[in-house]
Amino acid sequence: MTADNTQSVPHLTTALNGPLQKLETHLLAHQAEIETWFRTEWLRSPAPFYASVDLRNAGFKLAPVDTNLFPAGFNNLNPDFEPLSVQAVHSAMERWLPSAMRVLLIPESHSRNINYLESVAALRDVLSKAGLEVRIGSLMEDLAIPKKLPLPSGRTLRLEPVTRQGARVGVEDFSPCFVLLNNDLSGGIPAILRGLEQTVIPPLGLGWSERLKSTHFHHYRDVAREFASMVDIDAWLIDPLFRNCGEISFMNREGEDCLADNVEGLLAMIRRKYREFKVDKPPFVIVKADAGTYGMAVMTVHSSDQLRALNRKQRTRMSATKGGQVVSRVIMQEGVYTFETWGTRQVVAEPVVYLIDRHVVGGFYRVHTERGDTENLNAPGARFEPLAFAGSCITPDRSREPDAHPNRFYAYGVIARLATLAAAREMAEQEARQEECPDEPELAREA
Amino acid sequence: MTADNTQSVPHLTTALNGPLQKLETHLLAHQAEIETWFRTEWLRSPAPFYASVDLRNAGFKLAPVDTNLFPAGFNNLNPDFEPLSVQAVHSAMERWLPSAMRVLLIPESHSRNINYLESVAALRDVLSKAGLEVRIGSLMEDLAIPKKLPLPSGRTLRLEPVTRQGARVGVEDFSPCFVLLNNDLSGGIPAILRGLEQTVIPPLGLGWSERLKSTHFHHYRDVAREFASMVDIDAWLIDPLFRNCGEISFMNREGEDCLADNVEGLLAMIRRKYREFKVDKPPFVIVKADAGTYGMAVMTVHSSDQLRALNRKQRTRMSATKGGQVVSRVIMQEGVYTFETWGTRQVVAEPVVYLIDRHVVGGFYRVHTERGDTENLNAPGARFEPLAFAGSCITPDRSREPDAHPNRFYAYGVIARLATLAAAREMAEQEARQEECPDEPELAREA
Repeated sequence: MTADNTQSVPHLTTALNGPLQKLETHLLAHQAEIETWFRTEWLRSPAPFYASVDLRNAGFKLAPVDTNLFPAGFNNLNPDFEPLSVQAVHSAMERWLPSAMRVLLIPESHSRNINYLESVAALRDVLSKAGLEVRIGSLMEDLAIPKKLPLPSGRTLRLEPVTRQGARVGVEDFSPCFVLLNNDLSGGIPAILRGLEQTVIPPLGLGWSERLKSTHFHHYRDVAREFASMVDIDAWLIDPLFRNCGEISFMNREGEDCLADNVEGLLAMIRRKYREFKVDKPPFVIVKADAGTYGMAVMTVHSSDQLRALNRKQRTRMSATKGGQVVSRVIMQEGVYTFETWGTRQVVAEPVVYLIDRHVVGGFYRVHTERGDTENLNAPGARFEPLAFAGSCITPDRSREPDAHPNRFYAYGVIARLATLAAAREMAEQEARQEECPDEPELAREA
Repeated sequence: MTADNTQSVPHLTTALNGPLQKLETHLLAHQAEIETWFRTEWLRSPAPFYASVDLRNAGFKLAPVDTNLFPAGFNNLNPDFEPLSVQAVHSAMERWLPSAMRVLLIPESHSRNINYLESVAALRDVLSKAGLEVRIGSLMEDLAIPKKLPLPSGRTLRLEPVTRQGARVGVEDFSPCFVLLNNDLSGGIPAILRGLEQTVIPPLGLGWSERLKSTHFHHYRDVAREFASMVDIDAWLIDPLFRNCGEISFMNREGEDCLADNVEGLLAMIRRKYREFKVDKPPFVIVKADAGTYGMAVMTVHSSDQLRALNRKQRTRMSATKGGQVVSRVIMQEGVYTFETWGTRQVVAEPVVYLIDRHVVGGFYRVHTERGDTENLNAPGARFEPLAFAGSCITPDRSREPDAHPNRFYAYGVIARLATLAAAREMAEQEARQEECPDEPELAREA
């Protein structure tokens, strides 16, 4: 544990934390039901191998805004809690592939992002401490021979070109039992990974080329409602409202009416909720690519007029996401204010929570040092400093105040698990669909 | 993590650590096989709910000498690693009783042992943080109404009298889903716990009134041999030799020849092994009650003559264990030297490792401040100071020396898991036997 415990837990600098305290109080009071409920839900819908969940804490509301099934940022977690991750990998392996020993970790191909490479190294170390033989297979096209990358942390990463033999992938002299993807497949499923006899975790269908945020938040809405009725709160306190349209095009202004109508509808709903909970703030909506990531193609909207008045540059920015993928679907989501701030300069801090298997293994705050408290959005290119959680998210203390640090972290862990449970249901649904329409044989052969 | 990392890890003050380094090296080199092997073994023989394992580190040999299925000492673990215990309770609950919410914890009845009460409080806190509603039901005969015990740690323990209604036990206004025993049932299975419809964990048959150390070490011998052949070491390096006789009586000198012959046989075997591994130390044997605990009825023997020459006082001491239970069976076990010492005074330190479910959650050293380095035995009444492990037992670091602290702790964790796996097999065998001869109906009615 870090010595300056209090320093590394942001404060809520708002008077609007009444309902959140109420939420935290409810979570603590219902802890036994909550944990029992999660246990039975995980048995019904097994958790993904790993996940990270971006949360926003508005004081009056605590909600997930993104669930990543190919999490980066493992290097930002508190190293004191690494054993929790190692133990959780043991659990995950027992459930996915108990007899597996060798894993090929396939990361993103952008090898110049040092922070990302540090995350891959941290993840490799956790897997390795859990007793797996780990090699790192890169899909970078220009990688012909293994490449050693020394990192600032002192760790070294060895990237090796992935090779395929028949229905198996591997790297030189290493035939893994399974493939662990840390690559979100934004550019589609590469031929080299199709039709493998090895297990691929997470399943290929969970890559961003196949997955929609709106599907996730549909599942999350169900999860949030079931949960809210159990702990007797308004589901809105943990669930961001959202809507989506069919195919749209920012460049050709196709679907603009649908977008504008839905934004107006959402703003009206948020306004109603703000009145009900006495929130004296202007509502706003986030419009973002339904299959996007990396904070690209994201926009804040305060009125539908703003949408109609976009200039060419703004339209271009909203038309493509990571790797130049065209945006043809967007999700419009209730904007959730971030009222957690850190330090004397009161810079904005947003929690990110990590899970391995069904276990919350830690988290960190994104501290946005260059942003004031009115700019509450994870805008593209926004820079942040990571601030590891000083405590674990799984040791609530009912003898303390509901918003004491262990209890705040516990609340984060509960909401992050709800989002991960939604992802688990999404995964189960996706697998059921997969069984109806298995991989097309052409694609498998093509590889 | 404590700041003085090195201070809280004993040193091996012996030149005889060659083979142990070899053992640690083997464990590290075979980590992937070891973890895979454990995963498949735990699926075959589910782990007990919890366990603690006493280890002896002789430098040339690292072996368990006792496996406790009703562990005390949770208060001696490093509080920094409490999240590991909480996470492991989540795993245990998912496997034993996913839908259970309320637990009745039944501790030992000696309410004056403050250290033990602190352990019960620490265990209660872990269960509670894992989301269970915990009440503590005492079997103390003189407890008529609930009793609040303030403890030196600042925690409070509330002991309540256990009541029975039909086939269910509970405490006032609390009907638990299951009973967690932290009472080793040395005095037999109390009527109030027989024939319950609630699940009792660990199963009643694992209490010391039903269990024999020799059965455990028979299973351990098998486990150790399988494991040793996998990592290619001599099984003796992790397995204490043992023998046992049938019914004996110290008071009436019944079975004395059998005891003497077996002690001689054991000493000869140890001598052979010592020669093989070039250990220049006199061998010794521990004679102890086969169903005993609490370090009672334990004796160190260097020759069979010693056994024949016991005086009346010594015979009396060997004839009864905890609660006055008569000793009619003993186990004779190879004495394993403790060469781990701590601090400048070089006091003896013995590791104890804790598991919840199949997960190693921590451990501590028993530092025997009043004993020199030739008195290597956990003699009855021996006093010790607990020294929490500074690191976890599950984060080995292959980039460091095989005997570096994380790797030493990892080795402890491996050997402790082997002992716990032996207990798991014992439990499975016991359950199979139970199904053949279920609880006699008379006993169930008697309750």
